[in-house]
Amino acid sequence: MTGSAAIIGGGVIGGGWAARFALMRWEVRIFDPDPEAERKIGEVMANAARVLPMLYEAPMPTRGAITYVGTVAEAVAGADWIQESVPERLDIKHRVIAEIQAACSPDAVLASSTSGFKPSELQQGAARSGQIMVAHPFNPVYLLPLIELVPSAASDAAIVTRAKEILTAIGMYPLHVRAEIDAHIADRFLEAVWREALWLVKDGIATTEEIDNAIRYGFGLRWAQMGLFETYRVAGGEAGMRHFMAQFGPCLQWPWTKLTDVPEFTDELVDLIAGQSDAQSGHMGIRDLERLRDNNLVAILRALKQQGAAAGKLILDHDNSLRASLGDEIPLVTVRRVVPVDWTDINGHMNEGRYGQLFSDASEELMIHIGADREYIAAGHSYFTAETSIRYLAETHAGEDIRVTTRVALGAGKKLKLWHQMHRAADDALLATCDQFLLHVSLETRRSCPPLPHVAAALDRLAAAHAEVTA
Amino acid sequence: MTGSAAIIGGGVIGGGWAARFALMRWEVRIFDPDPEAERKIGEVMANAARVLPMLYEAPMPTRGAITYVGTVAEAVAGADWIQESVPERLDIKHRVIAEIQAACSPDAVLASSTSGFKPSELQQGAARSGQIMVAHPFNPVYLLPLIELVPSAASDAAIVTRAKEILTAIGMYPLHVRAEIDAHIADRFLEAVWREALWLVKDGIATTEEIDNAIRYGFGLRWAQMGLFETYRVAGGEAGMRHFMAQFGPCLQWPWTKLTDVPEFTDELVDLIAGQSDAQSGHMGIRDLERLRDNNLVAILRALKQQGAAAGKLILDHDNSLRASLGDEIPLVTVRRVVPVDWTDINGHMNEGRYGQLFSDASEELMIHIGADREYIAAGHSYFTAETSIRYLAETHAGEDIRVTTRVALGAGKKLKLWHQMHRAADDALLATCDQFLLHVSLETRRSCPPLPHVAAALDRLAAAHAEVTA
Repeated sequence: MTGSAAIIGGGVIGGGWAARFALMRWEVRIFDPDPEAERKIGEVMANAARVLPMLYEAPMPTRGAITYVGTVAEAVAGADWIQESVPERLDIKHRVIAEIQAACSPDAVLASSTSGFKPSELQQGAARSGQIMVAHPFNPVYLLPLIELVPSAASDAAIVTRAKEILTAIGMYPLHVRAEIDAHIADRFLEAVWREALWLVKDGIATTEEIDNAIRYGFGLRWAQMGLFETYRVAGGEAGMRHFMAQFGPCLQWPWTKLTDVPEFTDELVDLIAGQSDAQSGHMGIRDLERLRDNNLVAILRALKQQGAAAGKLILDHDNSLRASLGDEIPLVTVRRVVPVDWTDINGHMNEGRYGQLFSDASEELMIHIGADREYIAAGHSYFTAETSIRYLAETHAGEDIRVTTRVALGAGKKLKLWHQMHRAADDALLATCDQFLLHVSLETRRSCPPLPHVAAALDRLAAAHAEVTA
Repeated sequence: MTGSAAIIGGGVIGGGWAARFALMRWEVRIFDPDPEAERKIGEVMANAARVLPMLYEAPMPTRGAITYVGTVAEAVAGADWIQESVPERLDIKHRVIAEIQAACSPDAVLASSTSGFKPSELQQGAARSGQIMVAHPFNPVYLLPLIELVPSAASDAAIVTRAKEILTAIGMYPLHVRAEIDAHIADRFLEAVWREALWLVKDGIATTEEIDNAIRYGFGLRWAQMGLFETYRVAGGEAGMRHFMAQFGPCLQWPWTKLTDVPEFTDELVDLIAGQSDAQSGHMGIRDLERLRDNNLVAILRALKQQGAAAGKLILDHDNSLRASLGDEIPLVTVRRVVPVDWTDINGHMNEGRYGQLFSDASEELMIHIGADREYIAAGHSYFTAETSIRYLAETHAGEDIRVTTRVALGAGKKLKLWHQMHRAADDALLATCDQFLLHVSLETRRSCPPLPHVAAALDRLAAAHAEVTA
């Protein structure tokens, strides 16, 4: 699914939306009155273009064009998705929504990035309330999948459904919030923790860095993969959730926290927190911090993806939706992808083990092509690699686009020989080659045996075709 | 650093402590009056023994013995570390502490796992307050590094310092809490979020699963690596922390949340939450959930380790502290490790690419051994792999102990040939072999050149020694 998106109001959030859409093949038009908009959004786009493709094993779609336009009307005319990310003042939002609705299609999704307003507030006085909803993203928008999608009772159900389909198609997770409420869901938690953190710093119990460590060395690791309730379910042990609640529930009545109060936001408190934050992270510029954050997020998300768990499962499903069947070109193009940050080693280049993984991925694609796919494996057959010889011809770095081509050199009975070549997409340089010898095995006996007839026939055809052209 | 640890009171928390100590070579004595203690702690130990070694590239220390004893006195006599994890009632804690102090060394660390009591409360009426402190861990204790270490004014500074050294030596992160406060630090956040989550479920705004998704697809991913303040610093963009506070601070005065109230803990609320949790996760047993959680945590922590960031940096440092220099046996034992869960593929065994990574790790160890170490690389020289031939002889699975041995087959000028063999530790089965051809390069020109004299001399010695024995 593709189309055109209008981004109204930019900054970090609008830029993140623009990047998500454009990298997933949507045409993007941006209206942002900030004279610095193009530079700021360009920086977000550069960050996004570096890391988003690293989440995928599938080749990325062709990038959609991004255009900066001078008026709201130019941006929204004919757009399928309109994302409003202007400052958090209701009068400004109302004015911009009116301007959008004067020029946009009545079928378009008109979504607001607001964290502070409910959809019914945005809809006040609108020409067409039905197309207005909240689609609240989380920074960095180009990496975090969560979107709180909040319609009101006046929102059009068909447009809401389409909004969910579009968000899923660009790799996001629409959390349909079932009743509108101030601050939606996630920000209510952030608010609660922020408030408590302010007290702890103000009272000298902990510094900003100590608080960060208390989160990221402990429960932050739990929440990144299970959230709150599933974590507590596990904590309840064999007796489960009820047992956990019986144990932990009463704590809520203890006079533990100062959460009922809001610390006064004095200059002293601001100085204290800003000073501690400088001491903690001031040696890094904002671009360094962004890069650090993004590399960490890529690594965490890829780790979860490899496990097929939590946000990694979302990416895995999206990745599968991006895969196309192999064509019948000779040689077969079996891998097209970007080298992710978790593949490099102390020498600053792709570790030799990852070449082996790439060639393994290439043969897995070939397997799917010849019918030795997941169902075939589930039914008890597979190919195991018996021997590989890899020549490393040039260095490869994180962020580079690469391509692997594969020929069937021999397909006879249980034996299969593949010849892979890996190229850099930018200049077609040959980076590595691999001779791979595989054996067909029964997953029951773990011993070699001939492939099933449809796989053998497909291999025969490929071996003949590849031999002709090679000769 | 090693010694003996006494675990008083078991369950999931005590068992996690026991596992941490034993896997890091400490002798462990456990006293737990629960008749099911040995089974329950045994299960925690089995979980821990499966996953903790996966965090390390270094070989694990010899496991310390675990003994179950019949009295507190037997457990604590001569122990260097005593960990109290009995139920959260102050009268019970006081009684157990008295019993411990009647039999333990006055120099031992006497730490409590309590989340509910301050150290000064634990110290009331104690024979020796100085050795008592809080060491509050987070579940699973065998994977999460955070320990909130909370002394009171009466705690002995030398014993607190030793406690921090011991925790660091067993791979944990002691967060020295500078002033005692109810619920320490992290649980205050958990409390705040839990309270808000209860309202959201009770009011029908979100289900437990939607709340979990709102966390793990969004801010949970941020917190796992940066915590709260560093995340917001980045959100502040170029203008930094002050700008963020100026933007976000005022929100605290909005009437957003119901945080000032505690929902009444009725049967209806318990039923609602337990029912939703069943719908979300009831298809998995508690052991499945634990395994899922642990695999995810291993994958996330290893991903952060590869980036050298957040909790991964802690593990990296600890890993380095566990490494020993190679001996001079022939062949050299270059790798001893456990196969982690993130190394397996669709066939359920270690992916062929990881064999290449293991042999790459083996040659990196050899490099350190011959003086081509991190400083050598930083000064502009390294070895790059030009060609590898790997034979895969048997399948390898997550959790298996493996060993790589390495011979120098040729070390002449810029050329280096290594011969690696990989064995399963359990039965010494040969799993794979690798011929590896490397070239010495200048990192400035990225072209081959001869190694520096001390590296060349070390290689000559090894090549001669290895040739003699091979011949």
